[in-house]
Amino acid sequence: MSKAKKQILTIVGLGVMGGSLGAALRKRSRMVRVIGLSRSRSKIALAKRRGYIHDGTTELKAAVSGADVIVICTPVDTIINLISKIDRIAKRGAVVTDVGSVKFKMVNWAAGHTFQNIHFIGSHPLTGSHLTGVGHSRHDLYEGATVFVTPHRRSNRDALRRVGRLWRSLKSRVIELDAYEHDRMVSFISHVPHAVAASLVNATPERSVKHASSGFRDTTRIAMGEQDIWLPIFLDNRANLLRGLRGFERSLHSLMTSLMRSDKKKLKRFLTNAAHLRRQID
Amino acid sequence: MSKAKKQILTIVGLGVMGGSLGAALRKRSRMVRVIGLSRSRSKIALAKRRGYIHDGTTELKAAVSGADVIVICTPVDTIINLISKIDRIAKRGAVVTDVGSVKFKMVNWAAGHTFQNIHFIGSHPLTGSHLTGVGHSRHDLYEGATVFVTPHRRSNRDALRRVGRLWRSLKSRVIELDAYEHDRMVSFISHVPHAVAASLVNATPERSVKHASSGFRDTTRIAMGEQDIWLPIFLDNRANLLRGLRGFERSLHSLMTSLMRSDKKKLKRFLTNAAHLRRQID
Repeated sequence: MSKAKKQILTIVGLGVMGGSLGAALRKRSRMVRVIGLSRSRSKIALAKRRGYIHDGTTELKAAVSGADVIVICTPVDTIINLISKIDRIAKRGAVVTDVGSVKFKMVNWAAGHTFQNIHFIGSHPLTGSHLTGVGHSRHDLYEGATVFVTPHRRSNRDALRRVGRLWRSLKSRVIELDAYEHDRMVSFISHVPHAVAASLVNATPERSVKHASSGFRDTTRIAMGEQDIWLPIFLDNRANLLRGLRGFERSLHSLMTSLMRSDKKKLKRFLTNAAHLRRQID
Repeated sequence: MSKAKKQILTIVGLGVMGGSLGAALRKRSRMVRVIGLSRSRSKIALAKRRGYIHDGTTELKAAVSGADVIVICTPVDTIINLISKIDRIAKRGAVVTDVGSVKFKMVNWAAGHTFQNIHFIGSHPLTGSHLTGVGHSRHDLYEGATVFVTPHRRSNRDALRRVGRLWRSLKSRVIELDAYEHDRMVSFISHVPHAVAASLVNATPERSVKHASSGFRDTTRIAMGEQDIWLPIFLDNRANLLRGLRGFERSLHSLMTSLMRSDKKKLKRFLTNAAHLRRQID
C-alpha cells in the first residue's frame, strides 16, 4: 500500500478464472498489487505460492476496502449479492467488474440501483478451461481472448475505460456489447453447445464411451465443466438457452428427416453447409 | 518384386488415411514395398515425394495384381465394388482389408460371397483428421488408435491374423468385434456426434460463429469433415444413426424439460452425470 501509484486490484474468488487473472496481472505489470479473496485458505496459499497474488484473505472487507479495482470471479448466481456487499465497504470510486457468462440480469439490476461507492461494469471473457480450480490457472488464459464488456446508458464512462484498459493490458480483445444482445449471442456459442455436449454424453452407453476417439472427445470436452459454474449460467440465461436449443432441435430434425428419406441432396447440402461455416473459424 | 521376402502392400486411395498408412509402414518396416493407387497423378506424386509410397499408379490392375496385402482407403460406398474388382485380378491368397467406418453391410456381403482369389477382413481404425487429403498425412495417425477388426464365422483365420498383425505393427490396439455390434457402437461414439456437431453449426447464426471460443470450436470440430466421406457413412449406417439420434433427442428433451421447470435438482444431476462420465476418458 505504501509505494506511490501502485494500484490495488482485488480478485474475488480463486478458481481457474481468478487465478489466471492474477497470474496474467503479475506477469504483465509491476504497478499493481494483487489481492485474492477466497473462503479457502488452501487456495489462497496455493495462489500465493504460485505467485498469482501478492496477498490473500478470507475476509471480504479486508480484501476490498483498499482496492482500486475489484474483479468478481465467482459463479453468476453470487455476483449481484457480492456487488451489493462490496459497494458498502469499498473505497469511493472503486471500479467493480466480473467475469460472469450471463450479463443482462446483473447489468439491468445495476442500472436500476444507486451505488454508494462503486462503479460497476459487466465483463465476460470468452475463455476458460474444463480444468477447473486455481491449480489449473494459466498466465495466458486471457491472451487473445475476446472479452465482452456490457455497459448500459448510465454506466460511468471513466470506469468503462478503465475496465477496457484492464482487459487490453492482458492482451484480450475487448468488444462492447449490449447485455441483452450478449446473452443471446453467448447462448448460441457457449450455453447451447454445453447443453448439447452434456446431452450427448448422457445419451451414450457407458460401454461405448470407453472406446471414444478424438471426435467424441472434442465434441463433449466442455461437458466436463463444473455444475457449480454451469447450473447458475443455465438458470440465469434460461430463456435464451431454451430458444437456442429449440433452434438446434429444428436443425437436427431437418437432418433426421433427410436421413429417414435417404435424401442425398439435402444431406449433402446439410453437411457441406456445416463444414463451410465451421471452416471459417478454423 | 525382386528382393526375397519383401511383402507388397497396396494402398487403394490416397487421402489422409491412405497417406498416413503409407507413412507409418515406411517408417516402421523395410520389409514391405508400398504401392499407392489413386485416380490423381498429383496425389501419387506428392505421396511419393513425401516418402509415403515406393511407387504409385492410376491403374487398379497394376496396383493390386502383385500385392500380398491390399488396404482399401476410400469412402465406404465404394468398398464393396472395389473388393469385387480386386478379387478378379489379385494374386491367389491376397488379403484385402479396408478402413471404412461402417462394417455390417460389407462384411455381410463378403460372408455371402465366394471369392476367387482374396480373403477379405473388415477393419476400422478409430482415427482420422478433419484435415483431409494426402497432404495432411501423419506417420503417427494410427499409433495408439483403436482398430476394430470385424471377422465373421467364415473368415479365413490366417488372413485375420495377418490383418491384426498389420495394425499392431503400426502400434494400433486391435479389437475384434462383430460387425453389427461395431456399427451400433460406432454410431454412438462417432456418427451421432458428427450429426450433432453439424446440426449445431447449422443452428448457429453466422454473426455469432465468428466470436466462437474454444468450447464451440471443440464441440463442432468434426463438422469440418468432408461430405464425400461422411454422406456415405450416414447412409450406410442410417438405421443405427437414427436410433442413436433419437436417444440423443430424449436426453436433450429431459434437459429442456428440467430447464423449463427450473428444476435445479434434475439439472444438477444431468450436468454432474455428464461431467462424471466424460471425465472417465479425459
